[in-house]
Amino acid sequence: MSNANPLALIVGAGSGLSASLARKCAAAGMRVALAARHVGKLDPLVTETHARAFACDAADILQVEALFDAIDPPELVVYNPSYRVRGPFLSLDPLEVHKTLMVTAYGGFLVAQAAVKRMLARGQGSLFFTGASASVKGYAESAPFAMGKFALRGMAQSLAREFGPKNIHVAHFVIDGGIRRPDGDPRAHARGDDGMLDPDAIAETYMAVYRQHRSAWSFEVDLRPWLEKF
Amino acid sequence: MSNANPLALIVGAGSGLSASLARKCAAAGMRVALAARHVGKLDPLVTETHARAFACDAADILQVEALFDAIDPPELVVYNPSYRVRGPFLSLDPLEVHKTLMVTAYGGFLVAQAAVKRMLARGQGSLFFTGASASVKGYAESAPFAMGKFALRGMAQSLAREFGPKNIHVAHFVIDGGIRRPDGDPRAHARGDDGMLDPDAIAETYMAVYRQHRSAWSFEVDLRPWLEKF
Amino acid sequence: MSNANPLALIVGAGSGLSASLARKCAAAGMRVALAARHVGKLDPLVTETHARAFACDAADILQVEALFDAIDPPELVVYNPSYRVRGPFLSLDPLEVHKTLMVTAYGGFLVAQAAVKRMLARGQGSLFFTGASASVKGYAESAPFAMGKFALRGMAQSLAREFGPKNIHVAHFVIDGGIRRPDGDPRAHARGDDGMLDPDAIAETYMAVYRQHRSAWSFEVDLRPWLEKF
Amino acid sequence: MSNANPLALIVGAGSGLSASLARKCAAAGMRVALAARHVGKLDPLVTETHARAFACDAADILQVEALFDAIDPPELVVYNPSYRVRGPFLSLDPLEVHKTLMVTAYGGFLVAQAAVKRMLARGQGSLFFTGASASVKGYAESAPFAMGKFALRGMAQSLAREFGPKNIHVAHFVIDGGIRRPDGDPRAHARGDDGMLDPDAIAETYMAVYRQHRSAWSFEVDLRPWLEKF
Repeated sequence: MSNANPLALIVGAGSGLSASLARKCAAAGMRVALAARHVGKLDPLVTETHARAFACDAADILQVEALFDAIDPPELVVYNPSYRVRGPFLSLDPLEVHKTLMVTAYGGFLVAQAAVKRMLARGQGSLFFTGASASVKGYAESAPFAMGKFALRGMAQSLAREFGPKNIHVAHFVIDGGIRRPDGDPRAHARGDDGMLDPDAIAETYMAVYRQHRSAWSFEVDLRPWLEKF
Repeated sequence: MSNANPLALIVGAGSGLSASLARKCAAAGMRVALAARHVGKLDPLVTETHARAFACDAADILQVEALFDAIDPPELVVYNPSYRVRGPFLSLDPLEVHKTLMVTAYGGFLVAQAAVKRMLARGQGSLFFTGASASVKGYAESAPFAMGKFALRGMAQSLAREFGPKNIHVAHFVIDGGIRRPDGDPRAHARGDDGMLDPDAIAETYMAVYRQHRSAWSFEVDLRPWLEKF
Repeated sequence: MSNANPLALIVGAGSGLSASLARKCAAAGMRVALAARHVGKLDPLVTETHARAFACDAADILQVEALFDAIDPPELVVYNPSYRVRGPFLSLDPLEVHKTLMVTAYGGFLVAQAAVKRMLARGQGSLFFTGASASVKGYAESAPFAMGKFALRGMAQSLAREFGPKNIHVAHFVIDGGIRRPDGDPRAHARGDDGMLDPDAIAETYMAVYRQHRSAWSFEVDLRPWLEKF
Repeated sequence: MSNANPLALIVGAGSGLSASLARKCAAAGMRVALAARHVGKLDPLVTETHARAFACDAADILQVEALFDAIDPPELVVYNPSYRVRGPFLSLDPLEVHKTLMVTAYGGFLVAQAAVKRMLARGQGSLFFTGASASVKGYAESAPFAMGKFALRGMAQSLAREFGPKNIHVAHFVIDGGIRRPDGDPRAHARGDDGMLDPDAIAETYMAVYRQHRSAWSFEVDLRPWLEKF
């Protein structure tokens, strides 16, 4: 694959969604870079998608800078990482709440800053953020995740307003439901046929939004299984 | 084209968006039915897309029933019609406000009821509604359009919750900006390159949502030009 | 009571909320006018609050005009009427859906137009709309009510944006839960202590919003019982 | 004032809003505790409201614990602190963005955890959060403030859902506009009469929400000047 092929950087690789995105990007002729805290488990995906993998804690500015310095300016960056602690509010460990904010939201800021800098220089780019039901509704016993995901969405809105007119497509996806794990998810059966989100199906919509003409860009797209209550 | 090909019904045909949708559906191998109050102007599109055209006032239950009786059960129905009167609130003609509600929202109800009935019998279907900026924000001096478009969105939410689990994909699109008229829109230049929504680009996203796997359906998708303030 | 006392017009009188509002307004030294389709049942309230009662179908422009012509320019107008039909979408009678839109939303428009006209002439006024959970969420099997209440909210937003700067306070209340009927509501016990909205408590908040200084006006206020799921 | 009088704790004291709240609480017969990073400037207010002042960095768990250990279990806690850095996204100092999240959102978590613990023990309480326009809209060149305020709102929703049914009233106020500084704000004239929010007027609404009967609690209330564009 030539260096002329556009580069997709998927941050938070490892989950089903990241792997599906990597495959879709590779199939679309893009070079793929994967960034995750632990890259060992990525070996099969790296081989399959001819990707490069980078160890990176997205909440650590030095690691984020090193990541972007190690790759070409990306055409597409997807920010997937999240961390969550939940349970009765009084039982929450403040350090875990802090970590939830750092991984879910602050890491998104660090990656966005590094990405936008390079996209502006290229004159274009797409910057996508993966949200959740908790991005738009603060559920009981899940305050930290709501804090992190609300924050990420607020930032994404700011970025879309600042950088849309500079030819950077910023989009936020509200994943409203459980994502089926690729290797036989035990929860999937209980939810009925297609009752959990297929990561390939999610990735299909990300790619459709990536391909949108700039005269008709989406900022926010929700995705949920047909059977999901909402 | 065989009767085995799925049928797309586009209500409110005539505008740039409806024509673009008709072309995308035809290109995807679907049969196309167009419904509009005035069908004469549709002749070129009918020829181009091998469509059938039906005169139909969507706010008239008898005409809506006649329309659906004249066609096969549709696989995809898109409801585009809207009417609007705007201006200083005190200057609004109450009859025009009533008409805005009837065409923009009540017609959507009539079409939805006829469509869902047939889709349930088939066991599947997609029912899409075209919204606007006014679907989510009531602008000054534009109360009637906000009334109609808010109402349509509320109904679409109800339908998605009732019929998603019955394998009918209900989606609502928030078109946030002016749609470029196909034949050299004089406003387009003033808004800058791609500063108005290209109807083909909008239709592309409708088709992507139509093709979504039911494990990851979108209910709401916004679309706006990269240069649009929001 | 003197004609110098400001006049409160409560449209949709008869329910528990309207009666509570009438009492609060009377207690605050306001003259009270009550408008309802059936005024006979209002006799005790009329006596208690020294009000005048008017028969008025809010969805009929002639009756609305006659109502406003019969009273002094009001200082406060509250629009409460709603009508709803619900049930499986396919079972809905289109005429009932039309009526839902007319009473819930179009009547609000007619009353707003008559009220604003008089408030602008006075240089001030407050125009309040009573919404519901269905104003912000379209529930399954309740499309018509969502259509009506969404529409009313969209209109209220437009009015707030157009007339706030003209010294008319437009506000929209989202009543999220069942209102306890004053005379021993059989549902109240099942919901637990204070598990349904007390109409006096709702009216208290309306009055607090009515008294707000114009440097800090609320447009939207939600109200629900402490025990309500949301 | 007796220890039997309920205690109001205002965190982030010093601004115009906090001072106005302190005065309203004192006038309502409440004991007042003020917490701010710098308490020296609070002397006149402490004297005026017979308050106690505490130096406290709300983003520091040890200081928050010490604060709550030093006071009686509060009846009302208001969380006002925010910090913001803004400007072109690429110019933002990541350390300042982190601080924005810590003060605006994480401090709210720490205070909420300490407050709820004590309120549950008392069987009641009110916990209010001060939001901003940025709580519901991410503006260009203001991503950090949006992150912090969105996060705070998401947490407040979670708390309302978890603790409403436990008799703790959680509310979130969206202050949509500039708050007039008490001592002759030079910006106020340019915005027209009452064109900036009067902190006393804001505090009036907080107190009205505080006094709400639990059968009709508000979760979210917006406040803006009559002249404000929104």
